[in-house]
Amino acid sequence: MLNHFLTRASRVSSLTKYNVLPAFNFSRSVSSIPLATVEAEEISGARPAEVLNLVHGKWVGSSNWNTIVDPLNGEPFIKVAEVDETGVQPFVESLSSCPKHGLHNPFKAPERYLMYGDISAKAAQMLSLPKVSEFFAKLIQRVSPKSYQQAFAEVYVTQKFLENFCGDQVRFLARSFAVPGNHLGQQSHGFRWPYGPVAIITPFNFPLEIPVLQLMGALYMGNKPVLKVDSKVSIVMEQMLRLLHSCGLPVEDVDFINCDGKTMNKLLLEANPRMTLFTGSSRVAEKLAVDLKGRVKLEDAGFDWKILGPDVHQEDYTAWVCDQDAYACSGQKCSAQSLLFMHENWSKTSLISKLKELAERRKLSDLTIGPVLTFTTESLLEHTKNLLEIPGAKLLFGGQPLEDHSIPHVYGAIKPTAVYVPIEEIVKDKNYELVTKEIFGPFQVITDYKGSQLPIVLEVLEKMHAHLTAAVVSNDPLFLQVRFL
Amino acid sequence: MLNHFLTRASRVSSLTKYNVLPAFNFSRSVSSIPLATVEAEEISGARPAEVLNLVHGKWVGSSNWNTIVDPLNGEPFIKVAEVDETGVQPFVESLSSCPKHGLHNPFKAPERYLMYGDISAKAAQMLSLPKVSEFFAKLIQRVSPKSYQQAFAEVYVTQKFLENFCGDQVRFLARSFAVPGNHLGQQSHGFRWPYGPVAIITPFNFPLEIPVLQLMGALYMGNKPVLKVDSKVSIVMEQMLRLLHSCGLPVEDVDFINCDGKTMNKLLLEANPRMTLFTGSSRVAEKLAVDLKGRVKLEDAGFDWKILGPDVHQEDYTAWVCDQDAYACSGQKCSAQSLLFMHENWSKTSLISKLKELAERRKLSDLTIGPVLTFTTESLLEHTKNLLEIPGAKLLFGGQPLEDHSIPHVYGAIKPTAVYVPIEEIVKDKNYELVTKEIFGPFQVITDYKGSQLPIVLEVLEKMHAHLTAAVVSNDPLFLQVRFL
Amino acid sequence: MLNHFLTRASRVSSLTKYNVLPAFNFSRSVSSIPLATVEAEEISGARPAEVLNLVHGKWVGSSNWNTIVDPLNGEPFIKVAEVDETGVQPFVESLSSCPKHGLHNPFKAPERYLMYGDISAKAAQMLSLPKVSEFFAKLIQRVSPKSYQQAFAEVYVTQKFLENFCGDQVRFLARSFAVPGNHLGQQSHGFRWPYGPVAIITPFNFPLEIPVLQLMGALYMGNKPVLKVDSKVSIVMEQMLRLLHSCGLPVEDVDFINCDGKTMNKLLLEANPRMTLFTGSSRVAEKLAVDLKGRVKLEDAGFDWKILGPDVHQEDYTAWVCDQDAYACSGQKCSAQSLLFMHENWSKTSLISKLKELAERRKLSDLTIGPVLTFTTESLLEHTKNLLEIPGAKLLFGGQPLEDHSIPHVYGAIKPTAVYVPIEEIVKDKNYELVTKEIFGPFQVITDYKGSQLPIVLEVLEKMHAHLTAAVVSNDPLFLQVRFL
Amino acid sequence: MLNHFLTRASRVSSLTKYNVLPAFNFSRSVSSIPLATVEAEEISGARPAEVLNLVHGKWVGSSNWNTIVDPLNGEPFIKVAEVDETGVQPFVESLSSCPKHGLHNPFKAPERYLMYGDISAKAAQMLSLPKVSEFFAKLIQRVSPKSYQQAFAEVYVTQKFLENFCGDQVRFLARSFAVPGNHLGQQSHGFRWPYGPVAIITPFNFPLEIPVLQLMGALYMGNKPVLKVDSKVSIVMEQMLRLLHSCGLPVEDVDFINCDGKTMNKLLLEANPRMTLFTGSSRVAEKLAVDLKGRVKLEDAGFDWKILGPDVHQEDYTAWVCDQDAYACSGQKCSAQSLLFMHENWSKTSLISKLKELAERRKLSDLTIGPVLTFTTESLLEHTKNLLEIPGAKLLFGGQPLEDHSIPHVYGAIKPTAVYVPIEEIVKDKNYELVTKEIFGPFQVITDYKGSQLPIVLEVLEKMHAHLTAAVVSNDPLFLQVRFL
Repeated sequence: MLNHFLTRASRVSSLTKYNVLPAFNFSRSVSSIPLATVEAEEISGARPAEVLNLVHGKWVGSSNWNTIVDPLNGEPFIKVAEVDETGVQPFVESLSSCPKHGLHNPFKAPERYLMYGDISAKAAQMLSLPKVSEFFAKLIQRVSPKSYQQAFAEVYVTQKFLENFCGDQVRFLARSFAVPGNHLGQQSHGFRWPYGPVAIITPFNFPLEIPVLQLMGALYMGNKPVLKVDSKVSIVMEQMLRLLHSCGLPVEDVDFINCDGKTMNKLLLEANPRMTLFTGSSRVAEKLAVDLKGRVKLEDAGFDWKILGPDVHQEDYTAWVCDQDAYACSGQKCSAQSLLFMHENWSKTSLISKLKELAERRKLSDLTIGPVLTFTTESLLEHTKNLLEIPGAKLLFGGQPLEDHSIPHVYGAIKPTAVYVPIEEIVKDKNYELVTKEIFGPFQVITDYKGSQLPIVLEVLEKMHAHLTAAVVSNDPLFLQVRFL
Repeated sequence: MLNHFLTRASRVSSLTKYNVLPAFNFSRSVSSIPLATVEAEEISGARPAEVLNLVHGKWVGSSNWNTIVDPLNGEPFIKVAEVDETGVQPFVESLSSCPKHGLHNPFKAPERYLMYGDISAKAAQMLSLPKVSEFFAKLIQRVSPKSYQQAFAEVYVTQKFLENFCGDQVRFLARSFAVPGNHLGQQSHGFRWPYGPVAIITPFNFPLEIPVLQLMGALYMGNKPVLKVDSKVSIVMEQMLRLLHSCGLPVEDVDFINCDGKTMNKLLLEANPRMTLFTGSSRVAEKLAVDLKGRVKLEDAGFDWKILGPDVHQEDYTAWVCDQDAYACSGQKCSAQSLLFMHENWSKTSLISKLKELAERRKLSDLTIGPVLTFTTESLLEHTKNLLEIPGAKLLFGGQPLEDHSIPHVYGAIKPTAVYVPIEEIVKDKNYELVTKEIFGPFQVITDYKGSQLPIVLEVLEKMHAHLTAAVVSNDPLFLQVRFL
Repeated sequence: MLNHFLTRASRVSSLTKYNVLPAFNFSRSVSSIPLATVEAEEISGARPAEVLNLVHGKWVGSSNWNTIVDPLNGEPFIKVAEVDETGVQPFVESLSSCPKHGLHNPFKAPERYLMYGDISAKAAQMLSLPKVSEFFAKLIQRVSPKSYQQAFAEVYVTQKFLENFCGDQVRFLARSFAVPGNHLGQQSHGFRWPYGPVAIITPFNFPLEIPVLQLMGALYMGNKPVLKVDSKVSIVMEQMLRLLHSCGLPVEDVDFINCDGKTMNKLLLEANPRMTLFTGSSRVAEKLAVDLKGRVKLEDAGFDWKILGPDVHQEDYTAWVCDQDAYACSGQKCSAQSLLFMHENWSKTSLISKLKELAERRKLSDLTIGPVLTFTTESLLEHTKNLLEIPGAKLLFGGQPLEDHSIPHVYGAIKPTAVYVPIEEIVKDKNYELVTKEIFGPFQVITDYKGSQLPIVLEVLEKMHAHLTAAVVSNDPLFLQVRFL
Repeated sequence: MLNHFLTRASRVSSLTKYNVLPAFNFSRSVSSIPLATVEAEEISGARPAEVLNLVHGKWVGSSNWNTIVDPLNGEPFIKVAEVDETGVQPFVESLSSCPKHGLHNPFKAPERYLMYGDISAKAAQMLSLPKVSEFFAKLIQRVSPKSYQQAFAEVYVTQKFLENFCGDQVRFLARSFAVPGNHLGQQSHGFRWPYGPVAIITPFNFPLEIPVLQLMGALYMGNKPVLKVDSKVSIVMEQMLRLLHSCGLPVEDVDFINCDGKTMNKLLLEANPRMTLFTGSSRVAEKLAVDLKGRVKLEDAGFDWKILGPDVHQEDYTAWVCDQDAYACSGQKCSAQSLLFMHENWSKTSLISKLKELAERRKLSDLTIGPVLTFTTESLLEHTKNLLEIPGAKLLFGGQPLEDHSIPHVYGAIKPTAVYVPIEEIVKDKNYELVTKEIFGPFQVITDYKGSQLPIVLEVLEKMHAHLTAAVVSNDPLFLQVRFL
């Protein structure tokens, strides 16, 4: 999710030379991937895939199947076995079976640190196989439409994360320290301790990367997690868990549940995990903070901005980065650029027209633009219209629905869009909330400022609560130092 | 020899204003301590002390004076200028004046890191002067009755904390890191960033140590705190702030408010500090977590236990430590021992009789036992009575009110008390909550266990939520490793 | 080389489940291992193997072939192309081509950090393949005779080392830091910088582990090393370099030279590497320190001891560990136990007879005992005889040549040997040097001490210069604390 | 609030012996500084000062007095009791009395870590007193002539260093770590261990800062050092040791010896310290490396350069920094600038004339220029003359003896000097050694280069062995990145 990770995508091309290939033939495997139960490209209304739950070390179905529609054509193509409130008891019991001191800790079962180093090495090596990485990239594309490059990047980042925890690296995480005390025989020790039973709840936009990174981090340090992924995309993680099992992950170490929010809330209240890690909307996050009495860590969204300074340089590259940051994954990254401040020197360049050109190259056929899963087309166009009513606002490009598509109506489908709003208007109380409303889609606001208006820019920034990523583009040290202090 | 050192030379000229043993003659200073406005031992109903608020760099009173009674004799002896809801506006404005990037950060005003190193050195040196440490120890004793040794320890710990942040140590805290990126010119940087405006709320039991440590930590990293200390003891911190000002603390860097919880809540909601650090009861903590939408760090209480293993040794020392851990500060430490598990081998020794002897040596005259500020005598005796109704329970010692005292009725006054409850009863659902109720006073439960009952001990521990401190007393490696895994 | 590494051997049995197998068919490869040019078990007098040099990215022979004899039967079985003094020029040039700022550093070619993460991942994965690990384990056994378990452990440790530096871990090594300066815009930065051109010289006893760990460490941080391994065993590293090339190691990054000490000295003086890492005898180390004016890091040998404290427990396990520590690898580890101090309580047990039994189980056929490469049989027996002349000394076991073997006379071949010497005699000046002479072979001195003689034990230890590993076996905290302070 | 803090309470009773502003009345104290035996400004031929040795906790004289002449007027003004080869035995014995595990370590006497925190706090506080810092600054000026500002900076840096190790910071240095092992009960621990007996040898140019920083670092970690400071300036450190004793330094912890190099060599060979830290000339350093078989750490000199890039800015500030770096302390810093490369853009500015102006303002009366202690006037002028014979070379300023002075002939006395040499000539083999000869005096070479000559600049830099400090002055990111890779 960090910028750091996303830049990895450019290393992809060098990967084609990998060719180490295992021959697995487990009976349950319908795919050529070990333990996989689906073929990414063959899932369809005619041949729907099924997603199960995992509890007490066993994959289990449910009497209650939730049907997911294909975001590209509305066909029901995945059946998810959803647990309802009557079915949480096994999950509560499984989670409660883990003591406060976890499945391992610096004093208990230290060989499990090494086991997780081995699991990471094997899983990383699996993901490095072209057949496996392709399987996951395509499966991601089916449920969370994005370009192949973007989907592959998610697999690649996951592989690199696992590589970082090979060998002894997991046990190195559990490094403790001691400081001499006041007297003979006295020492103060600091240990890295697990929480024990924990819960992880992850969203739709990164179906593989977010749950794997959070899950493995929890497991490394001895926690027992129950994992809930947004049902729309949980098929990806269900398949990944099967791969992890084939790499040595003990089946009892993780439980996996498909359910709605109300059921998950019940599970959390009854099992009382000692920590819950939630990635998703601020609204749900705040409710959880209350229900769980603060025993929750949140990775919520943000409204991310970029400032172009007075020194104009590398115009093409800057346009390329701005396009990627705003519209890759159809803007459905928590790091996506939502507001661009241009110094007037940039306004005089062809940056905007270059940006327009790049945005207009995006097309549904290769998923460089695709469905928006949390806003409908109508609500996106409505938001555009509201912004355009601000005095001086104008549409720079986009602002129209996608054409010739079969994306179902519950999802959004618009062209990459940019609306210009004057800086003087943004800062006004009556407009501020509207302009800085977070739109999880291919949408950004662009404004410009004179050198003398820098204080207004700073005032706008100061009023925001959360900004996960932010950038200042300038090599001018005076601009950088004096202005941002 | 490093460039780093040599650049200090340029600071030399500014050093002439240092005057290490300064001659203070501010009109308000009535004590021999710089800027102090009270004499610790002369405060009385006849000569009550006054506590002010600090905002926008100025000490201010209030139309509303709250009167604090002397916990030893009930005499009204301190008048605190309390801000009510109509008076929070200046505090809101002062706090809001601090931007999100703080008063300093690695890019802004780095000279302030050195300034805080200097302030720490001077304040530590002040507290090392017998006159000054005695002043604060006695002032603590007046408002939070504890033995001179315990009160002095609080001053001493504070001095040592300040010594730890002399010289360059504050700037070393702000150490950043960078990791090479993927391409020429790319690097990932990590900086330690302030929150900006923050709030700190501290309790009555450590009137100096808790607020100074939390306050200085916040200031070091560039935050602007508003500090609220429990009004019953806020006189200590009010005097300490004056001392810090004399050591170079800019008067605008900290605001200091005396008010009730409702007013503080209003201040927090209006000023919207980016983080609030709260030390106190779980009940208030949970309310704050909701009101502040999770932007709060909590240091709440705990129910602390000690286990004596099968290997009996150093009986006298063990008794001494148990007495200190349970009854020092009249048990009003968040680390105080509340539940002691003895292996049956210890039951055969004279440990309990030694513990009784030590507890009975405690007396009001030297404050080795003193008033309990959060429970009345009645409620403490009631709790004792309830415990004694459990089958097999018995009073080991204490269980009676203090005699010949003038402690006011709003406070508690009992002798150091220990109640024995059989382990089999503790673990029962109907007794568990009663036995593990946290009593912030000179009170503990003692139980014993056979080797075969260790699983019951572990079950009791597993059911607790929070235990700030805990101890296992044994040198038997088999006991330690096999049992606690 | 650390104890930490050696303990890994016990994980070996769990490895058999690995089954990921690549199909390589490079034309130069005579083995089934990528790029390998030999078959470990087929090397013989009839079909001798050849070892080349690597310089300027090319494998080159020499007019000068050094013949290595099979340590088990004296047959000439490996021909090493040795460079003489007239041939060093290409190596000097190649080394000098690397600037002081290295092949990469935090500012130069940062993508190479990632490249080395990838090389490590691939090489680790290669070594995890049974065919590859078996190839190297057997090749090690051919030139540095040790049990299969010990040889395999060397491969396994090397694999784990490489796993530790997969993914981003190499670039994490290059993490830099910064501390705020005194003034606006000032910061102190610390970077991890390469030396640039460096040399690595490694001994015979760990032909794979020592050179790979030292070489990769140097490469990770941007150095260009020339590597010289003892010619007796350099075939192992020659093959490993070919494997590393197949995993992406640029052929110009490392030079590899086979030569005698005089030639290496010339190379060092002419190429003037900025650091030389030497592992080997103290005698050569001191000469190098002088010639290279201190620009050398040494890992020389040590005389390692173990103390058994007064508390007797786990007798069988203790005997097993003592046997392994003294006689595994025929005592040719720099960590091998050379002197064992037993508390008199242990003398009363059957420890010595158990130790004898374990030592006598060692046999040449599985190389649990084997040739000593730096002492002849005569010199080993001579040393034993000298020790036995000390008053009170006696032979505990061993002390005789191996039987029925064809180990050439230039090497040593004795049974695992232990000589008892009274503690009172060890400490005497006239005996001290003899007793603590380091014998790189299956040889140890055993003594015992009364509780009252602990000061003598400490005096003996205090007189030693270097002890790489040392152990105190006791759970008695009084023994541990009071005595070793 | 941590147990760690609470345990301090038990130290309270021992605090009563602290006496923060102690009343010293030792008979030998002639100064107002505690334990000082001299008055900095009154030392003269008529009233010479005496410097003693410290061994076995006692200050001792010698039959052999070495007389130091005043570097400003040649008057014999200090008598140093020098130990000769017959007198080293007590020093050998004292050093040998310290075991390999030091005076303290994480298991032995941990209370000494706290003691050193206290000593540092008190000594830092002493040096912060104007009377004390002035005493040391003036004493430094008497023996190692430099401006008051430079001498004071040395005291100030020393004070700040001591402040960095107040409170718990010394014990934090001794922080250890542990990593979980492979099996139950196994852990790898890392401890910071002392060497035990060590030696420290320091030069004349920083008589206080270098020895105090090195000495205290050694003491903090439990070593017992013998300290030898260049006799010309050892009076400073002799007085500082007395001050440290008054702050609680145990008199047996450090030995202090005045002697010549031959005697010191004998001491080192006989006492065989486990590490020697030497700061001084490369010539002596190399001999020590040989004699001590590598057990030596060296801080030798360097030839330091500065490059001015193509972007001209802040001309006045740049001139000021260049003047300071080249001529402060009369160029007798190991970090002094010896070679300045100016981009041709700078040649067109008035930088050189500004530099000349600043250099010519330096005068003997305030010691902004002063005696050179390691070169005579003749050798400095000879070097200048040799450089001027290089084709194209010219004298920019200086190049003449100081006038109207009484500096004795054994020392050097010249005006701040700069010689211009064309870059094309510097790089020639015949000139290179001459130009880069390190002159420990107020002397620098200046050259300029065209953009196209940057490779020549880099070649010059690449040929140097050691450069302690170096600077590149440019904000042009292309210049910085592309050129220095």
